Formats: sequence, structure tokens, C-alpha cells
Amino acid sequence: MKRYEKFADEIAELIRTGVIAPGEKVPSVRHASRTYGVSPSTVFQAYYLLEDRGLIQARPRSGYFVHALARRQLHEPDIGQYASDSVEVDVSELVFSVLSSLKDPDMVAFGSAFPSPNLFPLARLSRSLANSARDMQPHSVIADMTAGNPDLRRQIALRYMVSGMMLPLEELVITTGAMEALNLCLQTVTQPGDLVAIETPAFYATLQVLERLKLKAVEIPVHPREGIDLDSLADSLQRFPIKACWFMSSLQNPLGASMSDEKKQALYALLKQHQVPMIEDDVYAELYYGSQPPKPVKSFDTEGLVMHCGSFSKCLAPGYRVGWVAAGRFAEQISRLKLMTTISPSVPAQAALADYLQHGGYDRHLRKLRHALESQQRAMLASAARHFPADTRVTRPNGGYFLWFEFPTRVDSLQLFQHALAQGISLAPGPIFSANRHYGHCARLNHGHPWDARSEQAMATLGRIIASF
Amino acid sequence: MKRYEKFADEIAELIRTGVIAPGEKVPSVRHASRTYGVSPSTVFQAYYLLEDRGLIQARPRSGYFVHALARRQLHEPDIGQYASDSVEVDVSELVFSVLSSLKDPDMVAFGSAFPSPNLFPLARLSRSLANSARDMQPHSVIADMTAGNPDLRRQIALRYMVSGMMLPLEELVITTGAMEALNLCLQTVTQPGDLVAIETPAFYATLQVLERLKLKAVEIPVHPREGIDLDSLADSLQRFPIKACWFMSSLQNPLGASMSDEKKQALYALLKQHQVPMIEDDVYAELYYGSQPPKPVKSFDTEGLVMHCGSFSKCLAPGYRVGWVAAGRFAEQISRLKLMTTISPSVPAQAALADYLQHGGYDRHLRKLRHALESQQRAMLASAARHFPADTRVTRPNGGYFLWFEFPTRVDSLQLFQHALAQGISLAPGPIFSANRHYGHCARLNHGHPWDARSEQAMATLGRIIASF
Repeated sequence: MKRYEKFADEIAELIRTGVIAPGEKVPSVRHASRTYGVSPSTVFQAYYLLEDRGLIQARPRSGYFVHALARRQLHEPDIGQYASDSVEVDVSELVFSVLSSLKDPDMVAFGSAFPSPNLFPLARLSRSLANSARDMQPHSVIADMTAGNPDLRRQIALRYMVSGMMLPLEELVITTGAMEALNLCLQTVTQPGDLVAIETPAFYATLQVLERLKLKAVEIPVHPREGIDLDSLADSLQRFPIKACWFMSSLQNPLGASMSDEKKQALYALLKQHQVPMIEDDVYAELYYGSQPPKPVKSFDTEGLVMHCGSFSKCLAPGYRVGWVAAGRFAEQISRLKLMTTISPSVPAQAALADYLQHGGYDRHLRKLRHALESQQRAMLASAARHFPADTRVTRPNGGYFLWFEFPTRVDSLQLFQHALAQGISLAPGPIFSANRHYGHCARLNHGHPWDARSEQAMATLGRIIASF
Repeated sequence: MKRYEKFADEIAELIRTGVIAPGEKVPSVRHASRTYGVSPSTVFQAYYLLEDRGLIQARPRSGYFVHALARRQLHEPDIGQYASDSVEVDVSELVFSVLSSLKDPDMVAFGSAFPSPNLFPLARLSRSLANSARDMQPHSVIADMTAGNPDLRRQIALRYMVSGMMLPLEELVITTGAMEALNLCLQTVTQPGDLVAIETPAFYATLQVLERLKLKAVEIPVHPREGIDLDSLADSLQRFPIKACWFMSSLQNPLGASMSDEKKQALYALLKQHQVPMIEDDVYAELYYGSQPPKPVKSFDTEGLVMHCGSFSKCLAPGYRVGWVAAGRFAEQISRLKLMTTISPSVPAQAALADYLQHGGYDRHLRKLRHALESQQRAMLASAARHFPADTRVTRPNGGYFLWFEFPTRVDSLQLFQHALAQGISLAPGPIFSANRHYGHCARLNHGHPWDARSEQAMATLGRIIASF
């Protein structure tokens, strides 16, 4: 990372945290150069970059100013009131009917679960695939199935280490994407009929998996910015024989909430007190906008209670289907369960990722990706403020590529979904994020695709449909 | 396939079926040329090939003779007597302890589940990987996850078509190896506690999966040559509420038995009569030795009752983790279950196989592979006759790379397994193939590795350990 990029990120952080407010002037080049001990040309380059990222704008003869916010801004939603004691999950059919509508590539993909594939270094990955396949030892084609590619395992452990977590290699189980990891974890610590604490709203696949495994959900509300409501969780852990928690503590899907380190630590203390294992779904970990990666709850784990699930699917290589779990005390059981179900993720795909992580410039790619997603978020927020009713509420996550909209209660998001589909626009309606089909007036919109005139037009169309309710 | 290769295969078939007996002279070049209407040079080339494959040998001034059989031959086993009504399965721990012993690459790999990776066209596959990755459209990286690679689907359907089966593309679900296909099928048609008819002896993973899903096994004996005992199956279907059958109708693991077409048809009639779905594990389908591929039970299926599971792992690309199921009436359910568990096998691995199937020379590779496995089988059979006690029995499968040995009953194959391990030789002891840990005097030996002095020595060592009981 170059000096000016680092400096740009520092200024971006000041803007993001409100230290320099929208409309305010950023320090002059001379002033910044003196204050921060960097050369004027570094400051210039940094300001060009920030301008490029849409954070500041030059005013002739006046210097650089933080982009004024859109004329009007939508408010954030409040924390939801849909906690539930213990419910059967029955939402899978609805989810499938929504997902199957996403197949059309000509659709405006606000409903997609992935960022645009054009944001990923596919050509560079192909080279890694070719390189590593050429060098592959015949023996390893079979041996790497049970053990996993040793280089990939080391690279993943190294990334944990860089973020301050010393992870014994034996804890790592490489899986066919995070989805398999989550499934294996849940099956390892539960039996049919057991209670599992999940978030509300929750990632719809969580609900589907619970339904499939005949598990019951205890729903814990999520604050749109601060994450899981710990009082509610403490209460539920007290009252119910909860066998596992399945949470996203950072960049929660769909709300985008990230718990503070203090809250994460308190959450772990609760788990430890009740000796309840936690499945930590952390697939958006690399997509934070600030300069500091969020810590996972796993980083506070002293007893191997947390199964930390990660993946390359959302940040590097969708379709390669390689994920992992740092599985604490459950690693051996999970590994065995994997041998009985899929045996192994693709060995050449593992080798390609190992090669890419070593030589491909992963951190450089991630910085570019984060900046793209951040500027697309600003574009969607501004567009929503232009086209959606003023009493619409929306989250402002500090990472990822989802916004969660709460429309006025007269809006039926399943109808909105149908009308939008007819106009060639997909979205993820609120009810697929709830075991009880709550959130009937909410929707998750994906801003993972480069923002263009078509996106803007689609938002205007959505605005018109919403106004018609 | 060249003319002389075709002619060599015809002669090989005559030898295999006993039309030309061991020790007998094969037709002279002039005679053969006249009788079969091929040129003398074609006959010469064919005989060289057959000599190379160890089927015939030249005697100076006398011509070519079918290889005399080893001085003595071991007998075939009888059909087992271990049918069971309905048993809990509890063998997983034992299987894992055996499997974990196979990791050492310096071991003589008689216990392995795979043929030698050196028998696969890994370099050509790497090229397919590089080609297809280079040409991949960004959109398809994501789209191919849910639908599967369209070219691969077409190629698989084409192979069914060539073997006389018209398969609607919608029936095909691409999976992370056959193991995932088998798991998905079983979960789709059963609930915990249900009864499933399986073979005895059975592939150990079948037993593990039943145990994991809390299913009960009804064990149907398998004849070492003729396959599943249909009387026993008919009786069990009559007496028990069997929810599914999980069978290998061709090249059954571990016995190598293949049912005749008539028996397969009769089996299907039974299934249809009782409306019981069948999971057909057909992963060795391409490894037949004769000139005719065996038909699957699926080819008689008129009601979509049979889920036919295949894979490239045993015949082309171990480690790529790409398999499929032609799932009949269960395709939609299986496809949905897959979306909830692993979503998709690796997209680049799918694309590589599609490219290879189109351009790589798959049929040529398969012919070479079959010939290698057949000549290695002959070598292991001859070696066993030299080193094992005369009252040892052994199967003579018409394909694949496993032999099943029944040693004298005083031999404890779990002890044999331990002693052999200490000598650097792995094997698969009989009890891992049975829900009740029967077959304590049996073992499965893999002849999927090129036969050499070390293999011969290992057989001698096994013979000494066996004699010590």
C-alpha cells in the first residue's frame, strides 16, 4: 500500500466518522502536509484519490470540500420488535421462488446475493488456476482431498495471524464454500428438534437450513447499527435450552450491523457462561469500509466454543466454492462429517486460491473492491433519497454491498417484488429474512454492481411502484 | 479407435469369455486375416497389443498362445449369509480409524479407494482447466453455480444418449462428487428412523451415511458374480416398510459383482411394484473390462424411480469433485437441497471437465485405463495364488480395481490390517463393509496401481502374515 493511499484512507476515516462533516473543507495541502508530516505531492495524490472515490470535491479557488450530503437523507431504521421464543421455520418455498427469479442475467440485480463478477480479478485467478494445475503433483490430487491443500491452509492461517489471531492449523477445515461449513457446524452441535438462536432479520439461508434440519429458531433482534441485542439474548439463554447460536457479528446480512469489540466480548462471555457454541458466519469480513478490519467474536474465544466460518466467494472468487471453518473444539467432528458428505472441495480450485493468495495481490484487490462498494453505497443512498418516500428508512452499513430499506407500512414488499420483476428489476423482499414472514414492508437491495444510468432509472421505477401503494 | 485396437478387443473378449482357453493357440496371422477380413499387419499389431497387455505370449516358431493361468488358481467365494432384518449402523469409528491409516504416501496402497493418480490424464486436464478458465464469462462464474455448467450438462447427457438412454436435461443435478449426490438422494427420500435396503457387504461410506442420518439398514446379500439376491430383496420389500434401496448394480464395491440385464430388469420390476425409489451408485460404470458397457438399472426406469449417481472421480479426475445424479422425479427436490448445503461444485472444475469431454480424448483414455486395470488384476490374482493359502477365495470382477478375498476363518482381518500396516502395507479389512462387523476373515485389496516388484513383495508379506494365524 502506497503512502498516499494510506493517507487517503486516514482522511476517509475522518470523513466517515464525522470528524470532518459533509460540506466542510478538508485541510489545505500545505496545512495537511505540515500536520501529518507527509509531502505535498502525497497529499495531492491522496486528494485526487478521494475525489475519485466521490468523498470530496474540488471547488475552484477554494480547495477541497467533503461532498455535501444529498439534499435530503433517509433516516435509519429502529431496532426491530420481532423477537420470538421458539418457532418452527417454514419459509423455504418462498425463498426458492424468490431465488429462482434471479436467474435472468438481464435483470437489474438489486436482489442478487453477490457483487458484480466484474469486481473480481477473474483473469488473474485463471492464471493462478493454470499455474497451480501445471505444477500439481499426482499424489496431491488424492491426498489434498482429505487434508485440504496445505498451502491454502497456511495462507488462511497467516491471514488470521496478521489480524492478531494465532490459530492452530488443526482447527481449520476447508469446505465447499461457507455454506457447507455452516451446515456442517450446525449438524455437529445439534439434533433435530433442538433450539438455535438466530438473528432477526436473518440471512434467508439460515432459515432454510434450520427448516431442513428440523431445528427451531429463537429469534434475537438485531440493531441496525449495533448488532445483536444482548439483553434479549441473555434472557433467551436463561429461559431456553438453546443448543447453538448462529450469528453474523460483523456486517450482518441483511442489516449490515457490526457489533463493537466490547459487545463482541460481552457476547462471548454470555456464550461461555452458558457453554453454548456459536457459529460465526463472517463471510463479509473483508468488505469493511474503514481502515480497521472488524474483529470476529472468535478472537475472544478462549475455549474453542466459536466456529468461525469464512469464504472467498463474496470477496474474491465466487464459483470456486472454497470456504473454511476455524472450528475450535469441534474441528475433528466437522472434518469427519465432511468426509461423509462431500469429501472435499475441488482440489484444483484450492490450489489456485493458494497460488493467488501468495502471488496475486489479494490485499490490493480488496482495497479496490472496498472502495468500489463504498462509492456504490453512496450512490444508492443518494438515489434512494431522491426517489423513495421521505418516510422510508435505510441502513448505512460500514461495509458490504447491501442496504436494508424499511418502507412505509402500507407498502407490501412481496407485491413490490412482483411488480419490480415485471419491470426487469430484482430485489430481496423482507419476508424471506424471517421465520415468521415479518418485515412485509422491508426489502434488501444490492449495490454490488457499478452504478450507472440503468441503476438510477431502476431506483426511480421502484420509487414509482412504492408510491402507488 | 484404430482398426487393430478394435480387433485386439474382439480377441480379448474371446479370451475373457473362455472361447479361446488358457494355453490354447490363437488363430495364426494368415488364418485370422482371412477369417476376420482384416489385413495381416492389422492382426500383427493387434497381437503385439495383446502381448503387451499380458493376454497372449509368443512361442518361438509356434505362434501366439493365450497366457496359461497361474500354476494354481484361487476359488471364488460363495454368496454370503449375512442378510439382516433391520439393524442400527455403528461402524463409522472403525472406518475412520482405517481411513486415517491411508494417508502415508509411502504405503503400498492396497487399502486405497482410488486407482493410482498416474493412470489419469492430469496434464491434459490441466490444459482444459487453463483453457476454460481463460474463456470464462464473468457472468457464468455466478450463474453456473445454481444451474451447473451448461456444456458439462450437455456432455453428460450425450454420454447417456450414446449408451442408449434419452435423459431430459432437467433430470441432471451436478454435485460435489458422487458422494454428495448419494447423500442428497438419501435425504430426499428418507426421514430419520426409516429403513433402507443396502447390500452386504456394502461400500463403507454407505454405512457411515446411514449411521449419520439415523437410518436403519436392511441388508441384502450380494452374490460375488451375479450381484444382489433378488429373492432376499423381494422378501424384505414384502416384510418391511423400506423407504429406499441404495445399490450398486454394476461392479459392486467391494465384491465387483455386476447383475445381468435380465436381473436388473427384474430388480426394477420389484421396485416399481413396491414403489420404492432406488439410489443407484454407479461410480465404476466406465471401468468395465469387456467391450460392452454394463447397463444401469436406470435404463429400465419408466417412472423416474431410479436416481442414477455418477462421477468423474474414479475414472478421470479425482480431486476435481464433480459428480452428478440423473434424479428422475426427485430432481427438483435434490437440486433445492443442494442449494441449501453446498450450493454448487466448483465452477472452474466443471468448465474444465466440459472442455476435456469435448476435446480431451476421454474414450481413448478410458480404453487405456481399462486395459491397465485389467492387466493389474491378472497380476494380483496370479500373485495371490502364489502367496496366499490355497483355501483363500477371491472374486474375479469384470471391471474396476478391487479384489475381495475370503481368507480361512482363522484369519482375523483387523489383526491382519494392523500387522500389514506395521510393514508399510494398507488394506481394507472386511468388517468396515458391514453394519454388523461381519466379514472378519475378509479383506478388499486395490490393484489400481501399476504392478511392480514392490507389489509382489507386499503380497508375499501379506501371505506370511496370513500363514501366521
